[in-house]
Amino acid sequence: MSTPADPTPTPEPSTESSAESSSAYRAAVTDLLGVLAYGELRGFLQLAKDAELAPDLRHQAALAQLAAHELGNYRRLGERLTDLGVAVEDAMQPFVASFDGFHERTVPADWLEGLVKAYVGEGIAQDFYREISAYVDEDTRALVTDVLADTGQAEFIVTAVRAAIRQEPRVAGRLALWGRRLVGEAITQAQRLGVERDALAGILVGAPGRAGADLAELGRMFARLTDEHTNRMARLGLSA
Amino acid sequence: MSTPADPTPTPEPSTESSAESSSAYRAAVTDLLGVLAYGELRGFLQLAKDAELAPDLRHQAALAQLAAHELGNYRRLGERLTDLGVAVEDAMQPFVASFDGFHERTVPADWLEGLVKAYVGEGIAQDFYREISAYVDEDTRALVTDVLADTGQAEFIVTAVRAAIRQEPRVAGRLALWGRRLVGEAITQAQRLGVERDALAGILVGAPGRAGADLAELGRMFARLTDEHTNRMARLGLSA
Repeated sequence: MSTPADPTPTPEPSTESSAESSSAYRAAVTDLLGVLAYGELRGFLQLAKDAELAPDLRHQAALAQLAAHELGNYRRLGERLTDLGVAVEDAMQPFVASFDGFHERTVPADWLEGLVKAYVGEGIAQDFYREISAYVDEDTRALVTDVLADTGQAEFIVTAVRAAIRQEPRVAGRLALWGRRLVGEAITQAQRLGVERDALAGILVGAPGRAGADLAELGRMFARLTDEHTNRMARLGLSA
Repeated sequence: MSTPADPTPTPEPSTESSAESSSAYRAAVTDLLGVLAYGELRGFLQLAKDAELAPDLRHQAALAQLAAHELGNYRRLGERLTDLGVAVEDAMQPFVASFDGFHERTVPADWLEGLVKAYVGEGIAQDFYREISAYVDEDTRALVTDVLADTGQAEFIVTAVRAAIRQEPRVAGRLALWGRRLVGEAITQAQRLGVERDALAGILVGAPGRAGADLAELGRMFARLTDEHTNRMARLGLSA
């Protein structure tokens, strides 16, 4: 707004408000990348542990590959945080208790429960990446698109769960219950986070000087996430 | 050796012996890739589990990355086996009991023991890749070279263990004992494998029609592996 002919420009209100909103955005995107990063890191540890429940080496290796894929995503998120001048550990710290709580409350009793948890978890993460991509800056969106393009590692789970149900139809009821429990615990932890982390909520419902999703849009987002979960359970041959 | 003018060639002894030696070589290289593959896959699971003992997220992520690196090596070995027409699970199966036995007998009591185990294990694996590269075909050697070029992921362990010893000098004695126990258990399992798997021994001591290392060279190899282990322990600030 200032020109060389105007050597002492005074800060304009709009500039100040944009700096404020940019700092709020930065906090929000740090939270967003932090929650995803810890989700991937913790997911990695969990999948690696659940891989030990595998009935054979082929399935063990497949779940291990899915775990390594999550760690690859973690690495990409960490790099983006570093670009933003934030230590990945600092960004993740606020979300440790929620994810640890979720995983402690949903320890799979066997290989099949581990598979369903991996498939549901990976799916919800994918949906979440997709949903947020509309609300983030271009570089962060490029990362999200990149992560989303690199999928399909969990597809072996569909085959394995369907085969198990064909062989022993009554496991379907138990696994359907398990799926509901997983989503229930996930929602509990997500609500806790939404209350505790203003910045994270800000990126979705907007912050001073920056538009976010309005409440109606948030409601639609929630409906989409729920629908997608139902579709995923159906792909596994389970009712949601 | 036969020409169109000779429509009924009889198999020649030299051809038969070369086919025999090629089938012996194939069995040997299958064993070699199989033992490395299961070592990497089992190592991945163990490191991922030990990462949970980390005192903070930075160290947890570093050990997780090392685990993912091992799974990357597993993938490369599996691809080479597939090229050779062997299912990676079949190639690994003979080595499951040995590695599982080793890991069950060497469960780290804490984070530092986990780090020393990771460093010693990764180091011995690297040495082993280096030693065998002289005895394998060109394509397998390219894979080995590739794996060896991509190192350094374990270097954070040197810093972490040395810092722990500076802070609490008496842990050095306990960790040195732990290092000796790891090597003792590794040698026990390796001897068991050497006795049980003729093919694996064959690649080193030679097979009909194919030169391998002679016993003197095997002795030197063992000396090199021991020396390297001593050097590694010294880098950690530990006596071997």
